[in-house]
Amino acid sequence: MTVTVAVDAMGGDHGPAVTVPAALAFLDETPDARVILVGLEAPLAEVLAKSRSPAKDRASTHACSELVAMDEAPADALRKKKDSSMRVAINLVKDGTAQACVSAGNTGALMAIARFVLKTLPGIDRPAIAAQLPTRKGVTTALDLGANVNCTPLQLLQFAVMGSALATAVEGIERPTVGLLNIGEEDIKGNDVVKQAAELLKASTLNFYGNIEGNDLYKGTTDVVVCDGFVGNVALKVSEGMVVMLYDFLHAEFTRNPVRRLAALAAYPALNAFKKRVDPRRYNGATLVGLKGVVVKSHGSADALGFRHALYKAHAEVVHGVLDKIAREVAVMEAAAAVAMPAVAQSHAG
Amino acid sequence: MTVTVAVDAMGGDHGPAVTVPAALAFLDETPDARVILVGLEAPLAEVLAKSRSPAKDRASTHACSELVAMDEAPADALRKKKDSSMRVAINLVKDGTAQACVSAGNTGALMAIARFVLKTLPGIDRPAIAAQLPTRKGVTTALDLGANVNCTPLQLLQFAVMGSALATAVEGIERPTVGLLNIGEEDIKGNDVVKQAAELLKASTLNFYGNIEGNDLYKGTTDVVVCDGFVGNVALKVSEGMVVMLYDFLHAEFTRNPVRRLAALAAYPALNAFKKRVDPRRYNGATLVGLKGVVVKSHGSADALGFRHALYKAHAEVVHGVLDKIAREVAVMEAAAAVAMPAVAQSHAG
Repeated sequence: MTVTVAVDAMGGDHGPAVTVPAALAFLDETPDARVILVGLEAPLAEVLAKSRSPAKDRASTHACSELVAMDEAPADALRKKKDSSMRVAINLVKDGTAQACVSAGNTGALMAIARFVLKTLPGIDRPAIAAQLPTRKGVTTALDLGANVNCTPLQLLQFAVMGSALATAVEGIERPTVGLLNIGEEDIKGNDVVKQAAELLKASTLNFYGNIEGNDLYKGTTDVVVCDGFVGNVALKVSEGMVVMLYDFLHAEFTRNPVRRLAALAAYPALNAFKKRVDPRRYNGATLVGLKGVVVKSHGSADALGFRHALYKAHAEVVHGVLDKIAREVAVMEAAAAVAMPAVAQSHAG
Repeated sequence: MTVTVAVDAMGGDHGPAVTVPAALAFLDETPDARVILVGLEAPLAEVLAKSRSPAKDRASTHACSELVAMDEAPADALRKKKDSSMRVAINLVKDGTAQACVSAGNTGALMAIARFVLKTLPGIDRPAIAAQLPTRKGVTTALDLGANVNCTPLQLLQFAVMGSALATAVEGIERPTVGLLNIGEEDIKGNDVVKQAAELLKASTLNFYGNIEGNDLYKGTTDVVVCDGFVGNVALKVSEGMVVMLYDFLHAEFTRNPVRRLAALAAYPALNAFKKRVDPRRYNGATLVGLKGVVVKSHGSADALGFRHALYKAHAEVVHGVLDKIAREVAVMEAAAAVAMPAVAQSHAG
C-alpha cells in the first residue's frame, strides 16, 4: 500500500526550509510513501531545487496562494483563508488524494479547519490532541493536550476510547490500561467532572486502571492517560520547561571550570546518549484524534529531524488503520455509555 | 525574637525517626529557635534518648494520645482525633505557645484541622498550598498546589495576593510579578474562570504580568504563579515524575558499560552538584497560606534533611512576618476587587 501524506509546507516557524528537507528525508527511509508538498510556488521550488535526493520523484507539489499566520485567530483562518497551505493540505485528505496531513502551523487553526473540513467520527463530540510521551517503561499515550479546555465526563470517556485505540493500533498493546489524571488515587478525589468520568470509565469495556497522579505519567503506570485539555497542556508544557531547566543545570555544572570541562569530555558519550533519549524531537508530532482523517501536528519550532518524526507518525497511523480502530471502539463505547449513564445520574442524586 | 515551632513528630512515613533528628539539626543551625515535639510519649522519648545534640535543651516534648493515619479521611481526622499529634501541634499555634507548626502528615487532614482550628484570614475564602519551586532564574512561588480543586476567579485573585505577600516577605521581592497559568498567552485562551481571574488581576493593585504557559514556570518568567489546585497539583507531580525519569535515564547511561562507569567517576563532581541543585529535599515544605497561623506541610516521604528544610521554611515565614504581610495585602485587594467586579460583569454581558 502506498501512503500519501499531504504536507503543509508553509507551516511552522521555518516553513519550507524545514518541511521540504524533512519530507525528503522521510521519503528516503519510507519506500512505500509519497508526499504532496502544499505551499507557495516560488519558495517551494527554491528549496526543492537545492535537493538532490533520489526520493524527490515521490514528492509532488501542490500550489496554493496564501498561508495561515502562527498568531492568526482560528476563526479568521477558517473563514478567510480558503486557499491556505493548511486548508488545501486538509482538503487533499478529505478528497482521498492523501491519507494523512501533517502541519507545524497554528494549532488552533489546524484544529478548526480540520474539524470543519473532515468532520468528527460518529460518536465523537470533539477531537482531542494526543501524543506518545516517553516514560520510564516505554511510552504512554496522553490526551487531551490542549484542544478542549472544558470537558464533560462523556468527552473524557471518548478521549479514553480514542487513546486506547491509538495505543492498540500504533503501539500494538492488546488491551491498554487507561489512567484518569487526578490529584489522588482515591475515588473521593478531584472535581465533579473527573469523578463522573471515573464512573463512566468503570462501566465501560475499556481496561480502566483508575485514578492516577501526575507522577504516574512518566512512571508509565498506564498505557493511556486521560485528562482535559487545560490540564494536559499545562502538564506537557511544564514538562518541556523542566527538561530545559535540567539541561541548563547539567550544562552549567559541566562547564563550571576547566576540570569539569575535561570531565564533560569523558562523560560525553553518556551525556549524548542521555540527550538523545530525551530529545523532544524524537517525540514530535501530536495527533488530532477523533476526525475522519489522520491529521498530525508538529511543534511549530521543530527542525527537520523533528518534523520528519511527525511524518513518521502520520505514516504509521495510516498503516496501522487508526481511524478504523477508533471507529470500532467508539461503537463499543456507545453501548457501554448507555449502560453507565444511569449510574452517574444515581451518584449525582446520592 | 525566639521563634517556637510546634512539630507534629508522628506525621509522615517515618514519624519520630525522621522528625526528631531533623528538629535537632534545625535547632543546631537556628540559635533563635525552639521546637515543641508533639507525639506519643514512648517513641518520642526513645528517639530523643539516642541524641546527644547540645540543641536538645531548646526542644521540649508535648505528649498526645493518638495520631492521624496517612490515608485517614480528613473529616474523620477532624472530628474523631481531638488529641492527635497534628491537632495538638496546631492548637499550640492557636493558643500562641508556638508561632508555627510543621507536619509531614496527611495533607487533607492537616488542611481541614488547620482551617477549623486557626480559621482563615479576613478576606480569604479558602487557604491554598504554596511552594517555592526552583527555576532557571531562581525560585518562583506557586499556588494553589492541591488544596482547592474548584476555584472561583476571586479565589485565584486571593491566591495571587497571598503569593505576592509570600514572595515579598520570604524572597524579599518588592513588587513580585504575578503570572496566571493558562494554555496560551493571549487573552482569549483558557476557560471562563481563568479569563475572569485575568480581569480581576488586571484591575488589582498587584504587578500582574499576564497569562503564562506551563513552560514559563521553570523558566522563571514570573515571581508568582497562580493556578487552581487541580492544575497545580498535576503540574507539581508531573514535574516530580519527570525528574525521577531523567535521573533514571542519566543513571542508565552512566552505568551501561565499564567505560561509561569510569566516565561516571570523572563526572562525579559535576553530576553530584547537579543532583544537589535539583534535590527536591532542598525545596521541601509547602505553606498552607491564608490561615491565621503559619502551617508548613512537609512531603510525607521526606527524610531528615527534607524535613529540616520544612522547619527552616516555617521559621523564615515567622521571622519575615508573612501573616501580617498577607493581611495587609488582602486589605488592599478588597478595595481593588470591589472596583474590578463591574468589569467582570461587563465582560460577561459582552
